Amino acid sequence: MPTTTPIDVDELVARHVPDVIAAAEAAYARTFHSRYPERPTDPAYGEEPFESGQVAFDALQQRGLDLDQPSTGGSIAGEVSPYGLRLGVTYPSVDPEALIAAAADALPPWRAAGPDVRAALCVEMLDRLGARAHELGLAVHHTSGQPRVMAFQAGAPHALDRGFEAVAYAHAAQTRHASVARWEKPGKQPTVMHKTFHVAPRGVEVTIGCRTFPTWNAMPGIMASLATGNPVIVKPHPATILPLAMVVEVAQQVLASAGFSRHLAMLAAESPDEPIAKRFATDPRVKLVDFTGSTTFGEWLEDNARQARVFTEKAGVNSIVIDGTDDAAGMFANLAFSFSLYSGQMCTTPQAVFVPRDGIDTDEGHLTFEQVGERVAAALDDLLEPAKKGVQILGAIGDPAIVERIEQARSLGTVVADSHTLDHPEAPEAVVRTPLVVAVNEGDVDAYDSERFGPIAFLVATEGTDASFERVRDLVRRRGAITFGVHTREDKVRAQATDLALDVGVSVSFDLTQGVYVNQTSAFSDFHATGANPAANASLVDDAFVAGRFHLVETRSHTARTGAS
Amino acid sequence: MPTTTPIDVDELVARHVPDVIAAAEAAYARTFHSRYPERPTDPAYGEEPFESGQVAFDALQQRGLDLDQPSTGGSIAGEVSPYGLRLGVTYPSVDPEALIAAAADALPPWRAAGPDVRAALCVEMLDRLGARAHELGLAVHHTSGQPRVMAFQAGAPHALDRGFEAVAYAHAAQTRHASVARWEKPGKQPTVMHKTFHVAPRGVEVTIGCRTFPTWNAMPGIMASLATGNPVIVKPHPATILPLAMVVEVAQQVLASAGFSRHLAMLAAESPDEPIAKRFATDPRVKLVDFTGSTTFGEWLEDNARQARVFTEKAGVNSIVIDGTDDAAGMFANLAFSFSLYSGQMCTTPQAVFVPRDGIDTDEGHLTFEQVGERVAAALDDLLEPAKKGVQILGAIGDPAIVERIEQARSLGTVVADSHTLDHPEAPEAVVRTPLVVAVNEGDVDAYDSERFGPIAFLVATEGTDASFERVRDLVRRRGAITFGVHTREDKVRAQATDLALDVGVSVSFDLTQGVYVNQTSAFSDFHATGANPAANASLVDDAFVAGRFHLVETRSHTARTGAS
Repeated sequence: MPTTTPIDVDELVARHVPDVIAAAEAAYARTFHSRYPERPTDPAYGEEPFESGQVAFDALQQRGLDLDQPSTGGSIAGEVSPYGLRLGVTYPSVDPEALIAAAADALPPWRAAGPDVRAALCVEMLDRLGARAHELGLAVHHTSGQPRVMAFQAGAPHALDRGFEAVAYAHAAQTRHASVARWEKPGKQPTVMHKTFHVAPRGVEVTIGCRTFPTWNAMPGIMASLATGNPVIVKPHPATILPLAMVVEVAQQVLASAGFSRHLAMLAAESPDEPIAKRFATDPRVKLVDFTGSTTFGEWLEDNARQARVFTEKAGVNSIVIDGTDDAAGMFANLAFSFSLYSGQMCTTPQAVFVPRDGIDTDEGHLTFEQVGERVAAALDDLLEPAKKGVQILGAIGDPAIVERIEQARSLGTVVADSHTLDHPEAPEAVVRTPLVVAVNEGDVDAYDSERFGPIAFLVATEGTDASFERVRDLVRRRGAITFGVHTREDKVRAQATDLALDVGVSVSFDLTQGVYVNQTSAFSDFHATGANPAANASLVDDAFVAGRFHLVETRSHTARTGAS
Repeated sequence: MPTTTPIDVDELVARHVPDVIAAAEAAYARTFHSRYPERPTDPAYGEEPFESGQVAFDALQQRGLDLDQPSTGGSIAGEVSPYGLRLGVTYPSVDPEALIAAAADALPPWRAAGPDVRAALCVEMLDRLGARAHELGLAVHHTSGQPRVMAFQAGAPHALDRGFEAVAYAHAAQTRHASVARWEKPGKQPTVMHKTFHVAPRGVEVTIGCRTFPTWNAMPGIMASLATGNPVIVKPHPATILPLAMVVEVAQQVLASAGFSRHLAMLAAESPDEPIAKRFATDPRVKLVDFTGSTTFGEWLEDNARQARVFTEKAGVNSIVIDGTDDAAGMFANLAFSFSLYSGQMCTTPQAVFVPRDGIDTDEGHLTFEQVGERVAAALDDLLEPAKKGVQILGAIGDPAIVERIEQARSLGTVVADSHTLDHPEAPEAVVRTPLVVAVNEGDVDAYDSERFGPIAFLVATEGTDASFERVRDLVRRRGAITFGVHTREDKVRAQATDLALDVGVSVSFDLTQGVYVNQTSAFSDFHATGANPAANASLVDDAFVAGRFHLVETRSHTARTGAS
């Protein structure tokens, strides 16, 4: 086990807490803010960052993980990359009872550390992960199958920024109330009481990670929980353990260096044939669960982990309404990218695109419904050919069920753009498929109204834009959605869309024709999900995401000594 | 129906919103703050306030309520006061479906009004109720049976201050984020997006009131919901409808005067033989439920109203640990008052008082366990005799089950202070009983470990203070508690109590020997319940109490016109 260099906690608080406070200000202002540069060649990542990242990643395979936590002594085999590489790291097998007990035991000193120390150490964890961003990006790339640059951006700087945002909200929420107060009730003889307000964390947190975005979806819950004093147990998806194992390793390193128990952050690796999430989620000592994944399991958690506050992001059906556009070329290019990015394996990928069957008005004149389909197909070709370019956007498909799903979807309507295979020039084993786009009628609800995760989209012909909106209203109410896009030339249509968005609780992007995509949100400025529809019961990241992770416990006395601990 | 004088909403916003912002600052500072004077003879209540309150209350019996809401045409009979008076007001019977539909229809314009207008109108409602504080106090007195002055204070100014506090938190939570932002992502060609952040209320709220504190426990949820844009349906306990009917009447008056639908606040009076709460609570359009009452029904709501965010305050067992004291006389007088106030019909009344069986050290020397019991009995006599004085503290018992409960409790141990009947000098029909105090051993868990709501307390003999704390730890974990008091001369015992309090999530009052009682909390400075133990899943009032009542919905666009509504 490498030695840990002791951390000067006071110095860390002095250095990091002002940044945390500034970050919270940015979050409340919703302006641009970022701590971890998204450009892979940013000077922050040193010279030749791709190469040094690869060296570090290879070395990691050799050295293995430095984790200190109760283990049953067994080991769980490493993942196989969708790009062919067999990962060399193995993971300790765990007994949930032992992990939960160790986590609960570690809580009191972390609670006593207070919001400033916890925030500073969380930032230190993020910064150390930031220094290993290329290595972390490769871990995401080689487990999730995300394309290389995307895996770097979404897996490292963007995920770390979301984690930093969670720390900022958590710190703000814990420090908004005075920690001590002198209460004087006026009167002939004023009554005086001295009061202390303590942040009491709820208890052990369990993060249940998802296959496609191991770090991005998990960092907010992990950081919000740690920052509010709750020990975290991280259970990654069995196909994408390594990125979160790195997060836990760094967290343990920082905790130990600052004199805290490593058991405040532990890894619960799971073998695919022995699921352990249910056991963790229903333990009476587990008081917080953060989950990203299927609606079925998300609802199971909500129904069964009743002793805990459960934050879930589940499936949904994301819609686009096309009413018209002032930039047809920009719109089609933007849509093609949204369908293609990471082969549609995103909870934010649009699936149902509603278009009046009489066509739309654009800067290029009227386009029929069929022409809209042709333009989408052309934009996809343009984006994804040659294969060398396409694979940088599509990445690889890890889950064989997705390929089957594409085959099944083909027969649901008229194929507008067929899905075909691309040969990955550097990874012959990688499964790469272009998006399938199928035209259907609005009455073919069965085709488009359940999530078909993967590179599958529907162009849905409707009576007109009013009908499109009614379909979206119904879809979001029943199925949920994380994203919603609208293209129009009319302010009144925008107002109509906004009313709809408020009624059903989904955010809207209008007229995206440039380099921002409906599937993407920026930490500190865009909320990811609203928490108001069936796709998610929480938003990343807002006050509600952190408020339920701790309680305020008061001690009061007429004298100033209240035995504060 | 009386005519409503139109309200100048802009003027109201200019006048009230600064007060709301100042109130939020006070709440976060936890210093003394109050809008509604608790002294019944405060000049704010005019000359001869008791008399004019009585005149208004009598007139209300004659005129009846001015409510505009869907009704089935039937009517629900008025209450019978525990003090004998048969109340003359009747209530419209309702069909839950019609009320929920009307509430949902009323939502959009209230949502569009925004946080400032909603806060201003909520404050106006509270102020108008404040102007009728004595009338409202009489309504609480004649339904709950609270003694007259307490009914005024807890039922009017304190309840209105809690409502005001909820408005302040709600306003702060909704306005903490910018409502518009210009996001500029740096780069060679900076990307600019214009973003609007809308507060989207969750949906219809239902308040399920309790018998003993109809207004105090209900105002926070009603005000937090209205202030965040949610229509409210108020279902009082069938024995204590009138106070909340007055709240709804005033709310409707203010809403209508400002041009909003009266259906944003409606009364759902229930006849005792036809309960309607379950129907309301489980409707898919009902997204918020605020409940105070039994553990059985609170848990039913948590288990069944799954479409809603459910805030519950349920039963618990409140404890006092006596380790020693520097003011024995003050301590016993304070305890006697805590047991007696409103005949122990408070969710905050202490029930289990843990005392070392070897006795305690005090400023008056060592007191044996038996002497502690004698002193408690003497302090009760001192406080409650003669009857004329006693009834002003004890009030009356409305629920016959409480009298039975006293009879049953007598046999659970050694009676230290027996419960006896006091004759109410002005209300011969009033049931007035002094507290029963029974001495038991710590092993007699069955005696003291379930809530025996009413004037029943136990002196529990323990091995010592460490054992007392362990009993409290177990009790709070299993049964929940809203209050916890400790008397000691030792700082290390205070530190021990604070650690315990943080572990189990209950607030502590140390060494209360003066005019502050463990059963009482002050709006803006004390949190009522923590939300961290089985007695309540929320605290009145903190950020978590308001954060789940709305969502943030974002619209974004590269151009500044986003069709904001």
